[in-house]
Amino acid sequence: MSGQIDGGNGTGGAYRGYRDTAQVDMPMAPPRASGPSTLPGARLVTPSHAAASADRPVPGQRTAASGPIPLPPAESVPLAQICTVERHLDEILAAVPQPHPIELAVLDAQGLLCAEEVVSQRALPAFDQAALDGYAARAEDVVGALPHAPVELAVVGESVAGAGAPSSIGPGLALKVAAGAMLPAGADVVVPAVWTDGGAVTVAVQAGPPAGSYVRRTGDDVAPGDPAVQVGTPIGPAQISLLAAVGRERVLVRPRPRIAVLSAGSELVDIGTPPAPGQVVDVNSYALAAAARDAGAEAYRSGILPSDPRRLSEVLESQLLRSDLVLVAGTFASGGFDMVQEALSALGDMRFRQVTMHPGPAQGFGRLGRDEIPVICIPGEPVAALVAFEVFVRPAIRLMLGKRQLFRRTVQAIAGQALVSPLGYRQYLHGTVMRHPDGGYVVEPVGDGTDALLARMARANCLIVVDEDVTEVAAGGLVTVMPLLLGG
Amino acid sequence: MSGQIDGGNGTGGAYRGYRDTAQVDMPMAPPRASGPSTLPGARLVTPSHAAASADRPVPGQRTAASGPIPLPPAESVPLAQICTVERHLDEILAAVPQPHPIELAVLDAQGLLCAEEVVSQRALPAFDQAALDGYAARAEDVVGALPHAPVELAVVGESVAGAGAPSSIGPGLALKVAAGAMLPAGADVVVPAVWTDGGAVTVAVQAGPPAGSYVRRTGDDVAPGDPAVQVGTPIGPAQISLLAAVGRERVLVRPRPRIAVLSAGSELVDIGTPPAPGQVVDVNSYALAAAARDAGAEAYRSGILPSDPRRLSEVLESQLLRSDLVLVAGTFASGGFDMVQEALSALGDMRFRQVTMHPGPAQGFGRLGRDEIPVICIPGEPVAALVAFEVFVRPAIRLMLGKRQLFRRTVQAIAGQALVSPLGYRQYLHGTVMRHPDGGYVVEPVGDGTDALLARMARANCLIVVDEDVTEVAAGGLVTVMPLLLGG
Repeated sequence: MSGQIDGGNGTGGAYRGYRDTAQVDMPMAPPRASGPSTLPGARLVTPSHAAASADRPVPGQRTAASGPIPLPPAESVPLAQICTVERHLDEILAAVPQPHPIELAVLDAQGLLCAEEVVSQRALPAFDQAALDGYAARAEDVVGALPHAPVELAVVGESVAGAGAPSSIGPGLALKVAAGAMLPAGADVVVPAVWTDGGAVTVAVQAGPPAGSYVRRTGDDVAPGDPAVQVGTPIGPAQISLLAAVGRERVLVRPRPRIAVLSAGSELVDIGTPPAPGQVVDVNSYALAAAARDAGAEAYRSGILPSDPRRLSEVLESQLLRSDLVLVAGTFASGGFDMVQEALSALGDMRFRQVTMHPGPAQGFGRLGRDEIPVICIPGEPVAALVAFEVFVRPAIRLMLGKRQLFRRTVQAIAGQALVSPLGYRQYLHGTVMRHPDGGYVVEPVGDGTDALLARMARANCLIVVDEDVTEVAAGGLVTVMPLLLGG
Repeated sequence: MSGQIDGGNGTGGAYRGYRDTAQVDMPMAPPRASGPSTLPGARLVTPSHAAASADRPVPGQRTAASGPIPLPPAESVPLAQICTVERHLDEILAAVPQPHPIELAVLDAQGLLCAEEVVSQRALPAFDQAALDGYAARAEDVVGALPHAPVELAVVGESVAGAGAPSSIGPGLALKVAAGAMLPAGADVVVPAVWTDGGAVTVAVQAGPPAGSYVRRTGDDVAPGDPAVQVGTPIGPAQISLLAAVGRERVLVRPRPRIAVLSAGSELVDIGTPPAPGQVVDVNSYALAAAARDAGAEAYRSGILPSDPRRLSEVLESQLLRSDLVLVAGTFASGGFDMVQEALSALGDMRFRQVTMHPGPAQGFGRLGRDEIPVICIPGEPVAALVAFEVFVRPAIRLMLGKRQLFRRTVQAIAGQALVSPLGYRQYLHGTVMRHPDGGYVVEPVGDGTDALLARMARANCLIVVDEDVTEVAAGGLVTVMPLLLGG
């Protein structure tokens, strides 16, 4: 059985077991003599004086194919700071802490993973009861009853659900019972009302169910000491139902990680401010807070980082105190924002590096402050920021939530048009995936595939993932697609 | 193209178009001479004196097969009050109002459907800008540049993102630019820094990209007057990004319906109270509030209805004033709770009826109070309550949210064991569906399929739907399965 359907809440296997379903986890292609390589000592960068044709603009061709990604200049990026998607992700996942479980009221626990073994102190049902409306009787009294030869019983009374005083019956007697009502002592069967004449003083029984029929016995569902909800179970309506039934008002769960979302960039103004020439609206703190919330985090949009160095450090330090993870978009933009990189680096071990991915190779990660809070830095360009969120931040949030399935499921889809991708880089393209009438899926990149286009991204429903060693996908070829389904 | 992948947020076709994916929407089987029928005038009830074998308990066989559902006695249920799942659902969906759109801050709009045509007043980008770090230049100056024959340009300065004062360049000149920085007048290309020597006073350009390369032109993404987010679009991170970029702080959306969740039953005690003999804990108001929230509603758990008739009416009336929909579990339990039916009926046109489904045929619907608020009554037995929620309430909530795809997707799965089902009733069984190693799905009912077992329901991840005209599914046969994926 290869993976239970679980809505991504992960009940099957450690997360490593799922990594092969996501292109982000595909094994690296074998190194080639002429291509990039991650072998120790090998140079990952194509020297600029020998730029491959894939890294050159092609006149008049502005398709998905034509967004060549200039490689970072070899002289300015030490080799240690260039790494694969895989390695950067591994470092983040290895370093992300798992917040301590907290106790929440059952309704607040919805959507979280149970962090305790809930053992019932009670039996469910707590007493023998009628499973439906009818007559509690002795099976031996009604065994021969038939529609044309009914058995007559004397009705000694009526019991409704919630009635506390247990009654009893003897031979030839019946008690009218409602579903959920306590079974009287002496009765071992409930004759459904529809198989009787419904009498109030005497009842004509037209069928004799065997002993035990339509009776819910004490503990049939849960016996005292039985496990009710187990560690790692996602708490949904059915679990809440069971927790309430065993009398649990509160339950220990893996909490939602608190994530501070910050934007860096001296060109940024907040959403309510009309941007002056050269300025742009900070969209990342909004979009990333929404994405973090969608991934299951409790997101705090802290907005644009101040440009004054002292206030900048104060803001960063205060966010580290109140967060389980800090997400900063735009630290890598050049021109004055190295200030943010500096301020972060002053707080602990930060690694800024070029990751072999497009869009947005500029990524960073560290664990800062006294509590070594993980800080993830992603590009400031809004399309690249949401791609980096998908690739690095969403899996980290899911790991913090305790989910085993960290990655979105992927599907193979037929490329509706040819795609090209730079050698050595994993390319993520926003696209639209549709079911094909003959089965399977077809995917098209949105627009012409050039990046930084928010309107096009907003029309996409997936990311197309083109692996590092693939430079070209023909129209009609298969590509890996990661549908971006929203929660809720 | 048969249906876009949209996470159930519905961007393809009216909801009717999706009904054939859900077993709840399968066309009724043709009427048979000896079986139940929904043709006008036909009798739907098998008279109790001619109960078919499927309606009889089978000794010693308590499997999924053996939960025979006694049909309601013909004499006590008028024909008009017996109806199919299909008809009851249609009546609910036809009567459910669509709440008026409200304006929310963009982050609060997450997960909801846009209810306005958002037109951008701005161009995006707002100015011609560099797409990456490099040198803004004139394409004609660098056209012949090659690694071994670089073109030298004089660097007139540096422009960072956010810098407001536009500069200009002439022949033979270049401006060092950061990604996002304004393009100086006169420049029509950005030479990526990696294709240069990175000089500060003069720069050696080793490749000459054609005019327009690495330049984002004003309005490339969105021009003033362009539609940004359209009516009916689900608002996710990408839409929030775009809304922020066009300067929208607030947006008109279809709101979450406010749903009051109430439990009826004199046997009920709240979760914190140890139940006395005969009493049970109210689990429905918790489980249904969670289910309503998972479906997208704003759920208010109002708890157990009072047993005093006057206070009961007061509670119901006050809930009608503050809700878009009222959900009551347990109105149909016999023994004293007709009081709730009476109180509801006093407030408007309520229909209590037997729906040809199992578990929980006892259903009700009406529109009550001055504002004709929809009130849905479902069984009090917790397993039947969550099944009824899935079948009737979740589609109603999704309709109120404006979603087009009201129903969960279904899959066909191989039955791991034989299933039987009473003729004329649509049976819903909780089950566990798994992917089969050879492709497709396999499903097993949880436990032995007897109902009212919360612990077993909590282990299920799907509902198995057995259609009205099917009385038996052989092991290895195909059944319709509705995976119960949780949101988030």
